[in-house]
Amino acid sequence: MSFETREKGMVTFLPSSKTALSEDSLSLMKLSQLSGVPIYNTCNAIGTCGKCLVKVDGPCSTLTKVEAHFLTEEQISGGIRLACQCQPLGDVRVEVPQQEVPKILSEGLKVAAAPRPNIRKDVVQLDPPTLADQSADLTRVRRALGLHEAGKETELGLLKMLPKSLRQESYLVTAVRAGGSLVAVDAGDTIKELYGVAFDIGTTTVVGYLHDLNTGRQIDIASDLNPQVDYGGDVISRIEYTMQDAAGLHRLQRAIVQRLNSLIEILCGRAGIRLESVCEVTIAGNTTMHHLALGLEVYHIAQAPYIPVADQGLELRAGEIGIHIHPQGRLYCLPNIASYVGADIVGGLLACRLDKRPKPTLLLDIGTNGEMVLGCRDRMVAAASAAGPCFEGGNILFGMRASGGAIHGVSFAGGDVRLEVIGGEQPRGLCGTGLIDLVAEMVRSGLVEESGRLMAPDSSDCTEPGLLRRVRQGEKGCEFLLVPACESATGRDIVLSQRDIREVQNAKAAVCAGIKVLCIEFGMEMEEIDTILLAGAFGNYISRTSAVIIGLIPNLPLERIRSVGNAAGVGSALALVSTRARSLAERLARRVEYIELSGNPTFSNEYADAMYFPV
Amino acid sequence: MSFETREKGMVTFLPSSKTALSEDSLSLMKLSQLSGVPIYNTCNAIGTCGKCLVKVDGPCSTLTKVEAHFLTEEQISGGIRLACQCQPLGDVRVEVPQQEVPKILSEGLKVAAAPRPNIRKDVVQLDPPTLADQSADLTRVRRALGLHEAGKETELGLLKMLPKSLRQESYLVTAVRAGGSLVAVDAGDTIKELYGVAFDIGTTTVVGYLHDLNTGRQIDIASDLNPQVDYGGDVISRIEYTMQDAAGLHRLQRAIVQRLNSLIEILCGRAGIRLESVCEVTIAGNTTMHHLALGLEVYHIAQAPYIPVADQGLELRAGEIGIHIHPQGRLYCLPNIASYVGADIVGGLLACRLDKRPKPTLLLDIGTNGEMVLGCRDRMVAAASAAGPCFEGGNILFGMRASGGAIHGVSFAGGDVRLEVIGGEQPRGLCGTGLIDLVAEMVRSGLVEESGRLMAPDSSDCTEPGLLRRVRQGEKGCEFLLVPACESATGRDIVLSQRDIREVQNAKAAVCAGIKVLCIEFGMEMEEIDTILLAGAFGNYISRTSAVIIGLIPNLPLERIRSVGNAAGVGSALALVSTRARSLAERLARRVEYIELSGNPTFSNEYADAMYFPV
Repeated sequence: MSFETREKGMVTFLPSSKTALSEDSLSLMKLSQLSGVPIYNTCNAIGTCGKCLVKVDGPCSTLTKVEAHFLTEEQISGGIRLACQCQPLGDVRVEVPQQEVPKILSEGLKVAAAPRPNIRKDVVQLDPPTLADQSADLTRVRRALGLHEAGKETELGLLKMLPKSLRQESYLVTAVRAGGSLVAVDAGDTIKELYGVAFDIGTTTVVGYLHDLNTGRQIDIASDLNPQVDYGGDVISRIEYTMQDAAGLHRLQRAIVQRLNSLIEILCGRAGIRLESVCEVTIAGNTTMHHLALGLEVYHIAQAPYIPVADQGLELRAGEIGIHIHPQGRLYCLPNIASYVGADIVGGLLACRLDKRPKPTLLLDIGTNGEMVLGCRDRMVAAASAAGPCFEGGNILFGMRASGGAIHGVSFAGGDVRLEVIGGEQPRGLCGTGLIDLVAEMVRSGLVEESGRLMAPDSSDCTEPGLLRRVRQGEKGCEFLLVPACESATGRDIVLSQRDIREVQNAKAAVCAGIKVLCIEFGMEMEEIDTILLAGAFGNYISRTSAVIIGLIPNLPLERIRSVGNAAGVGSALALVSTRARSLAERLARRVEYIELSGNPTFSNEYADAMYFPV
Repeated sequence: MSFETREKGMVTFLPSSKTALSEDSLSLMKLSQLSGVPIYNTCNAIGTCGKCLVKVDGPCSTLTKVEAHFLTEEQISGGIRLACQCQPLGDVRVEVPQQEVPKILSEGLKVAAAPRPNIRKDVVQLDPPTLADQSADLTRVRRALGLHEAGKETELGLLKMLPKSLRQESYLVTAVRAGGSLVAVDAGDTIKELYGVAFDIGTTTVVGYLHDLNTGRQIDIASDLNPQVDYGGDVISRIEYTMQDAAGLHRLQRAIVQRLNSLIEILCGRAGIRLESVCEVTIAGNTTMHHLALGLEVYHIAQAPYIPVADQGLELRAGEIGIHIHPQGRLYCLPNIASYVGADIVGGLLACRLDKRPKPTLLLDIGTNGEMVLGCRDRMVAAASAAGPCFEGGNILFGMRASGGAIHGVSFAGGDVRLEVIGGEQPRGLCGTGLIDLVAEMVRSGLVEESGRLMAPDSSDCTEPGLLRRVRQGEKGCEFLLVPACESATGRDIVLSQRDIREVQNAKAAVCAGIKVLCIEFGMEMEEIDTILLAGAFGNYISRTSAVIIGLIPNLPLERIRSVGNAAGVGSALALVSTRARSLAERLARRVEYIELSGNPTFSNEYADAMYFPV
């Protein structure tokens, strides 16, 4: 019974200025829905989410218990009300706050998503049981949430936590739902503790992004090596490892899951939050990394016709693979496209949205494989070509990973060689970007011919006699002296051999021919590509000029070649923060047409042609 | 392209005689659906279940590959076709076989259910992958089943088995679905291997029923003790055990699950089937047995206001609680009504269908608790009253369980006592049914007064001087000598003490007062109950006459008192065989109104009244 005087009045919602005639016992929420400007909430307006804050000016019903629970004194004195609780009693102006759209940043790439997490929390004060109300714990929670239909598939983990969760804080609980299903009940009010970690599992490194799922905001980033590198540097060697040893698959899975757990611990430690407040984890990675993290057989990824176990997006319980977060926390794995175009590329598509672009754009991620998608809003086509390990320093005489002492930049100037070395140390070897720079400079200066042949030391065609002096006959044929022994960290000459140049030719031909096949599929020349987006660390650090000179990527004006940083990580974070992004990922993965290059005659022809360096 | 001549013709379905006009390229299945007599199938007519056998007479399309796969030569030559494959080419008569309705039998109770298992198997020959068709294993299976929408919640166990299952028998696989979701893929054709085990977990014994889920038929029954008896004879003592020892709950769970596994092994061994062909298990048991099997906390069942964790039916993976059947096999637990009216009573309701009866019928299961439902199609009301252990031989001086040497029947004739002893051995003590017989005979003969007082040895009111001689003053008051030391197995007199009679009075008063409360709720006298159905072993062996004489059950004509045997087990089997029975169980459990007797003043009054023996 209420003794408040009720008068009909006009309710105006700002900033839309839409209006509704107030009616007896209709809440502002209900009126806002009637007027076509529904106010954001996550509990279907049953008073459990506390998210429908509005600023009210005019006569209204008195504060409810629900409002007293959710609102601070400052908010109350500032005229803030919950729209689902407050009823207008005359002419009222209602300011509806606009939803925050947080930005997720990654080098070179800005992507926005309104938070629409898969996990939703609602605080509910349950009526304690009595002899007159003996409802089961589960029924009591479901009833309070307005879930009247009994869910059949109920998780044992949920049932096991119920008795304690209900009674620990006198039946004040936080219900946790995933994709609409009740999956957990926390004791007390944990509504603010709603975090997630998005992972990009690379073959070499793992990056984790901690996000507040209530706001969508990124809080922190942590990264580390993928510990599976101890079992093989590339995907093929890891797949071989699982074949040599019956426990190999399990060992690789355990290694990566332990790393994910340690990154989660680091992120939680730095942010000062409990592991249990991380409610969801997402994973993007290439198909092999995806399968290994889940403990799925990878053998058939490596064997023709190269078949993955699953390519759809997967929703699992994080605990099922040993990830330690909220005991009922979830795990979402982005979908894969094919065995060699994986969830990392789908993450990149989410971040780069080729499907929205009017003109054909190339998304390219170069590692031991060149993974590429050429697409625009009409069509998207993908392929993967085996570049081999040389861009990661493999199979190169003085090649090395991009770590301390690696030469990552090379330029020829005034007949001399200038080097950039990671950490400013004495040089130890060449990493991929340095290798490409060096070969590009040698091609540009004429030290390497179109065919890839290193000019003979006694050649008279060279315009750079200072550099020509560095060409010499080594034990295994011609070589270029990059760093003399006295300047190197190892006390040995650092050289580039003719064989190294052949490795680079093979690798760049594979990538270039792949791009060509995609262009042929689109019926266009490579130069007609509108923009090239270079994803991943290699794409981030590579010299675009050098890459064009050696013919690794098509010869576009440099402003149409952009690095997009860790696009896979951004995509993983988008899928973490928004279920809309997840649905989009599923659609994108299925829309992309995959072209198998292995055994493809067009590819073979283009590959042979692409062995040459551009003139 | 088909060169068969197509003519319009009339298709007649028998035995219904419904007809349909044949149309180009419509199958018999489609036509049967149009004519309103759909033919039974489980694959939505996509040709993977092979269940839509019909006998055809008239011109039809030629045999398809699918038919060649499913039909024997004998069937083919006998005119048998698959309705989903066969198209009529003129006037055709189609005999549609009527569905088998197998009978599930239990002593005194016949219940029929058409098989409609939760688990469904479909044999599919997949196209092997090629470079031109690189679909993932999961996609390949889903596509063949016509499941185009990607299921998001995909089980890790399914994904892990896919690569081997697909390739082991050259892509001939059996897809296993539970409640519509793909949950497993078996290598090869395992369609005939579709079994289930229905359990009734009693506080003392466990019974398992092996069923063929393709036909619904019961194959075998196996039973054993509930190994939890080592941790306490009744539910309360087991709950106390879980409170005394942190590992107690886990220990009790492990004990019962091991017993379920051993029963499954025995059943499979005798039937000569593999454990993996058991695809589902159902469990009915009282709420405590239900919770202990799932490892759920039982503490609050024993503490006022007596709250269970969950009362809805639960669908889980059998492996989650350690049951070893098909690696992706399911577990269904029937719903509970309240902490002391559990899934065993719901099973009994499924078997006895009080909800269909026009007149109020009482379903009564007597053990340490008397669990009772009074109901008819309009209404069902349930209660549980604490009878205490005396009906199981507890708290009785010479009481014992119903095992070898137990006196299970007593009658007085010609001034003497006649005994029935289990196993024909020398008597050791009295089990519950013998105890009730004895007390009933003593009441009938006047040796025990209405108040429960044993007649003094020197009384002159007794009409049976031969029996009166057996009444004597023992160490703890008056007692009745049932078996002299020289005739007993233990060499000691077997006697019934005044205190024993008080125990029986307490127990029967609790049950009787509970029944009275239910009758009051219905606004009727106890004698107006139409039928009493006695469930469980005790109800099966008890003398109905004796039960009426002591006032344990209302005084109805004996033909209106029936034993229904293990109704809980029958209900569990029904839920195993038919998803319809499951839905019904859910509805029944929620329809029953539970009346808490603890602290109920009506019950207290009736209890006091019911202490007297009827005159």
